[in-house]
Amino acid sequence: MNLLYLLDLIGTIAFAASGALAGVRRGMDLFGVLVLGMVTAIGGGTLRDLLLGDLPPFCLRNETYLWLPVATALLVFISHRFLPKIEQPLLYLDAVGLGTFVVIGTGKAIAFQTGPLGAVLMGVMTGTAGGVIRDVLSNEIPLIMRREIYASACILGGGLLVMLRHLGMTENLSLLLSATSVILLRLMAIRYNWSLPKAT
Amino acid sequence: MNLLYLLDLIGTIAFAASGALAGVRRGMDLFGVLVLGMVTAIGGGTLRDLLLGDLPPFCLRNETYLWLPVATALLVFISHRFLPKIEQPLLYLDAVGLGTFVVIGTGKAIAFQTGPLGAVLMGVMTGTAGGVIRDVLSNEIPLIMRREIYASACILGGGLLVMLRHLGMTENLSLLLSATSVILLRLMAIRYNWSLPKAT
Amino acid sequence: MNLLYLLDLIGTIAFAASGALAGVRRGMDLFGVLVLGMVTAIGGGTLRDLLLGDLPPFCLRNETYLWLPVATALLVFISHRFLPKIEQPLLYLDAVGLGTFVVIGTGKAIAFQTGPLGAVLMGVMTGTAGGVIRDVLSNEIPLIMRREIYASACILGGGLLVMLRHLGMTENLSLLLSATSVILLRLMAIRYNWSLPKAT
Repeated sequence: MNLLYLLDLIGTIAFAASGALAGVRRGMDLFGVLVLGMVTAIGGGTLRDLLLGDLPPFCLRNETYLWLPVATALLVFISHRFLPKIEQPLLYLDAVGLGTFVVIGTGKAIAFQTGPLGAVLMGVMTGTAGGVIRDVLSNEIPLIMRREIYASACILGGGLLVMLRHLGMTENLSLLLSATSVILLRLMAIRYNWSLPKAT
Repeated sequence: MNLLYLLDLIGTIAFAASGALAGVRRGMDLFGVLVLGMVTAIGGGTLRDLLLGDLPPFCLRNETYLWLPVATALLVFISHRFLPKIEQPLLYLDAVGLGTFVVIGTGKAIAFQTGPLGAVLMGVMTGTAGGVIRDVLSNEIPLIMRREIYASACILGGGLLVMLRHLGMTENLSLLLSATSVILLRLMAIRYNWSLPKAT
Repeated sequence: MNLLYLLDLIGTIAFAASGALAGVRRGMDLFGVLVLGMVTAIGGGTLRDLLLGDLPPFCLRNETYLWLPVATALLVFISHRFLPKIEQPLLYLDAVGLGTFVVIGTGKAIAFQTGPLGAVLMGVMTGTAGGVIRDVLSNEIPLIMRREIYASACILGGGLLVMLRHLGMTENLSLLLSATSVILLRLMAIRYNWSLPKAT
């Protein structure tokens, strides 16, 4: 499980950086940048723990999940002039975080005995709700509801994990496979500019 | 209790359809339409269960409450061109859902031993919070806070239920009476275009 | 502890009045004004109790915290024409509420055994989340993320309380000292128009 924990921390940093960067771009003060960095990084997992009734949530039990976003947001606030250079790498790290968050969320829901659709939903929420809260606080329609293969990668990853576990694959292998699928799909969506259909 | 369960499912479908339709109108992609359909249908009851500490919430314990909104939202997404024709019936079904959601919420809060005002509040929240989350995610001021006899029908219905139970009426009869009051009041408000005063 | 309870009720009224006033200004109807008054007054503490898993939250266990905001919001709705005259005093009462909410939140988190950063976070959230929800419901970027020494006063107050308790000071004295610090800092920020740096 140590690899998953490492990926989880990388994802936390990547999500915090993207949230803080959004705050800087929208002209927020230091506190606003801190808040956007934190909610983006821990909002999804916190909402999942609230719904599963596993309280206090992960970030209040292991403060690493609080200190990392705070430090990342501070760093972004101070050094934001240099950030355009790392925006592309950040996008890749974000994909790593997304895949990891999704399988952690779905895996935890399975352990909490939700049904299959509930487990996928908890995974998608773990991966995406932080970004949704970031956009709501920035007074924008959540990015995820308007474009791109982002949420759909989460749905596929969560669904794959539910299926693999149902077929009897070991936890570690199924987590690894599902996370990898989300990450690869997401990287290809970035590379080839894929998007979902709209109702027309 | 079977009649109440049936009305609850009808309301879930009606709320999901109105949420999904809002997503289509705002130009969202398939995922956005799914999210708006789901939060509108289950957001209020989920928030109520969170606050009452009854976790995981109803929709994670009975996945019918997840599959129905997903199927409804998909159907709306695919067939939205024909939806203008069913908009009026949808408004009536929405009234049925509203009355049912309110009395289920207030009734559950009473069973969880909240005070009278808390019970009414939980009922109003069960009926209206899903639509509020839908509007927040669509970056609009919640419709409910700007017009019409909608929330006030909920307050009256919840208050009536608290009173009837306090007076010793049986659970089933008081639920039925209160739900009917909300539904009738709501239908008349639609019919006669009633609205609440603004501060002027 | 009776002084703290009294300050808590004063703060609840002040927060409810500011929320209701925001609703009147934004042209909402009576229900919208009630909702904004209530979420501003009890939103922060409710979110804190959700995260700490102390459910149902304080306002459902002691309905004084529901009746006061309802009565305050009604009063504001009826008499809003006279409110410009009391806006300045309201700002001072708001500072009293802020300091009290923060130390109650941080103190409760300490009692629930969170770590130091989590305790400060719970205090800040108790003091500020109600206003954030008010702004999100009004479709505005939360005021707190754009200006002024408001959140930073909360961070300092929460941090001071964590430190004083860690150093062994008695609960009552440390609560009083920390609340006073927030209130004084906030009053000086109003007086001298202090604000946080933006990233430039």
